[in-house]
Amino acid sequence: MNTDLTLYESKASPNSRRVRIFLAEKGIEIPTRTVDLGAKEQFSAEYVAINPRMQVPTLVLGDGTVIGEVPAIWRYIEEAYPDKPALLGTTPQAKALIAMWERRAEIDGFAAVMEGVRNAVAGLKGRALSGPHAYEQIPEIVERSKMRVAHFFADFNERLKTVPFVAGDAFSAADITTLAAIDFAAGGMKMGIPPGFDALQAWYDKTSDRSASKA
Amino acid sequence: MNTDLTLYESKASPNSRRVRIFLAEKGIEIPTRTVDLGAKEQFSAEYVAINPRMQVPTLVLGDGTVIGEVPAIWRYIEEAYPDKPALLGTTPQAKALIAMWERRAEIDGFAAVMEGVRNAVAGLKGRALSGPHAYEQIPEIVERSKMRVAHFFADFNERLKTVPFVAGDAFSAADITTLAAIDFAAGGMKMGIPPGFDALQAWYDKTSDRSASKA
Repeated sequence: MNTDLTLYESKASPNSRRVRIFLAEKGIEIPTRTVDLGAKEQFSAEYVAINPRMQVPTLVLGDGTVIGEVPAIWRYIEEAYPDKPALLGTTPQAKALIAMWERRAEIDGFAAVMEGVRNAVAGLKGRALSGPHAYEQIPEIVERSKMRVAHFFADFNERLKTVPFVAGDAFSAADITTLAAIDFAAGGMKMGIPPGFDALQAWYDKTSDRSASKA
Repeated sequence: MNTDLTLYESKASPNSRRVRIFLAEKGIEIPTRTVDLGAKEQFSAEYVAINPRMQVPTLVLGDGTVIGEVPAIWRYIEEAYPDKPALLGTTPQAKALIAMWERRAEIDGFAAVMEGVRNAVAGLKGRALSGPHAYEQIPEIVERSKMRVAHFFADFNERLKTVPFVAGDAFSAADITTLAAIDFAAGGMKMGIPPGFDALQAWYDKTSDRSASKA
């Protein structure tokens, strides 16, 4: 275990799960500190001093450097452990294709679910956008999010008819974000993979079965 | 000039500008093809065959691989030209900090302006989100975008009181996205850097003066 690093995270945070799976796929263990979102611990003075954006996950390095944002935490881990299986690609072409597909999974899937949840849930009134500033919910966004998630399922089903993994031939961070988005849609919006989307369902079943996906 | 690559882009596209500045900072020239957004060429059969998401910029490699999404195009260029000045960092820590700050500049700044413009402009009715699907405009988002851009100016002014460049001591991709966001806010939303934000204004003046920023 690398005790120079500390990961602040929450089991209730789908973004934290993206980092947990990434670490588990690489077989890396680092000390974690739970931030209790139910108790609004992310707004506590102690946590705001660590991450003024009041978000999880946050990775703190041994020298005190604070890394927020999932893709940035991933990038640190990928670069700091070059002997572990690569999840962000090994060639310039693979790195770019994984970056592209991971981003599409985030924008079309993960972020669409996130805005659907944050603009709908009563407990997030006045917190429609994550971060240090207060924004009121916009109900019209919720209906649009449902359309976006439906398109995400359809588009990724088409993609997965042609390739075994989201970014191509190998498992990558793009699969992690896609999995996290699908489970977040099921849990947060009660939207599951529609019947007949066999390629996406087969990919989902296979990916869910990976031991790291339980992280 | 590397004639194995082709960049499809538009002078009217702020996302294309992020790639043009990145290439100019590195001193890399590649053949470009203009996509005429005014003539809706991004929806033409010829362009959709290249990028089904109907977005610019798109980088096409010599083997036909298509790379969309600005950070993915950047990643390809950074990795394929290791002898050029790094804009995404050289150490694990710098790579992560640049990824973090570039993402914040995009989410808080660039994307906030983008949704403000796309939900307001008459010519983008039914195209409130970029990509292959049609979404109607939501006027309430425009007012929220103005608040978001105001917070972006304030937060980045605070940041630039403490560091010479957005991600720390060195010019990076995070500065490119911040510059593109500020100019996009001025052009698309008529929102300039407010008076009294001296740190942000000084950074902007210095960054605008770089020759690559004219790209």
